[in-house]
Amino acid sequence: FVSVLSSAIIAYRLPWTWKCSKILMKFIHAGLNTIAMILAIVSMVAVFEYHNARNIPNMYSLHSWIGLTAVIFYSLQLFLGFAVFLLPFAPVPLRAALMPIHVYSGLTIFATVIAAALMGITEKLIFSLKNPAYSASPPEATFVNSLGLLLVIFGALILWMASRPHWKRPPEENAKVLRPIGGTSEGTEAESTMTDGSNADKSDLGINSEAARKQNLKLDEAGQRSTM
Amino acid sequence: FVSVLSSAIIAYRLPWTWKCSKILMKFIHAGLNTIAMILAIVSMVAVFEYHNARNIPNMYSLHSWIGLTAVIFYSLQLFLGFAVFLLPFAPVPLRAALMPIHVYSGLTIFATVIAAALMGITEKLIFSLKNPAYSASPPEATFVNSLGLLLVIFGALILWMASRPHWKRPPEENAKVLRPIGGTSEGTEAESTMTDGSNADKSDLGINSEAARKQNLKLDEAGQRSTM
Repeated sequence: FVSVLSSAIIAYRLPWTWKCSKILMKFIHAGLNTIAMILAIVSMVAVFEYHNARNIPNMYSLHSWIGLTAVIFYSLQLFLGFAVFLLPFAPVPLRAALMPIHVYSGLTIFATVIAAALMGITEKLIFSLKNPAYSASPPEATFVNSLGLLLVIFGALILWMASRPHWKRPPEENAKVLRPIGGTSEGTEAESTMTDGSNADKSDLGINSEAARKQNLKLDEAGQRSTM
Repeated sequence: FVSVLSSAIIAYRLPWTWKCSKILMKFIHAGLNTIAMILAIVSMVAVFEYHNARNIPNMYSLHSWIGLTAVIFYSLQLFLGFAVFLLPFAPVPLRAALMPIHVYSGLTIFATVIAAALMGITEKLIFSLKNPAYSASPPEATFVNSLGLLLVIFGALILWMASRPHWKRPPEENAKVLRPIGGTSEGTEAESTMTDGSNADKSDLGINSEAARKQNLKLDEAGQRSTM
């Protein structure tokens, strides 16, 4: 689940996917997230059935509370992302305004999922290791602890990739803009410089936030990013 | 500890602190982080003494591994931040190059600390609640679970504040730039527009990353941000 979710997050970040069209990229991102959602639902059903079969109460632990919260927000995120960014109905300013929120909540849900996984690992180690106990540091404990530490490193790496401005997908050169407002943004030299500057600077957490701001100068570029 | 750490993170983000001088802001940020570091050390000593007094092994759990990793990286972060950004020896390009890494690792350490806290809460609930057990959901369990969920919401809020480009401290208007390179960046109209654009766009995760990039156009502004 975490690996599919990670692939979905960094799908836009890999130079070899920059050759794909914007719409194909979106389908890859949405498809991977849909697979991750299915995996999350399957594993939740498995947990509830396991609990019921063993007469263990459901939803009593902090792990379960945070895990279920993450899954609920994840399904909301998936639904909103589908409705706003994939279906062709949402207007460009709405897409531009929601994009920073979409990116922020995606990354926050990802971090929360990793935290929930770490809590689940902790619970499982305490409940399963009895003879010798977890506190006696049997080889299994050391092994699973190392896996947990690797999970943290992996998550930090994904967040690094997702937040680097220069790993961002460059704007398409021959983009078929659905609603060109004031021609191509590469028209004049001054505009071109400005676009380069802002592309280089803004991190993805702030992607497209410019169009939602006071200066609506670059609405056409924002449109190109979130329309096709 | 988490609240002092949070205050340190958002110190730059509060409009009423924007009136302070840059150097005072830095001292507030560094001072709060130093207090948080002292609290972290005190609580670690307390944990080891508690374990030793009760004959509980030290450092066996995933919680302790991740917690210790976070504290080690946090002390590195504090030391490097002090050496590079507070002492007046580091050259401006080095500061500009290290700033995005400093911001990223600060926020990642913060998220890791919250994850470690949640794992610690889970452990404590399992070990302490025996009669009735944690799985029977006594009022204490529900109460502490709610606190854990609030901790996640609090952490998400801090990360939201820290990653919003328009909550960023605006550049000082009458900045005393130590090494003005090529005069003020507000000199020509073209430059001014570009600076506005990039200030509006870049999120803080990418703060100053422009100076480390190919176009070193705005090295003077970067210098202003990380020198004083």
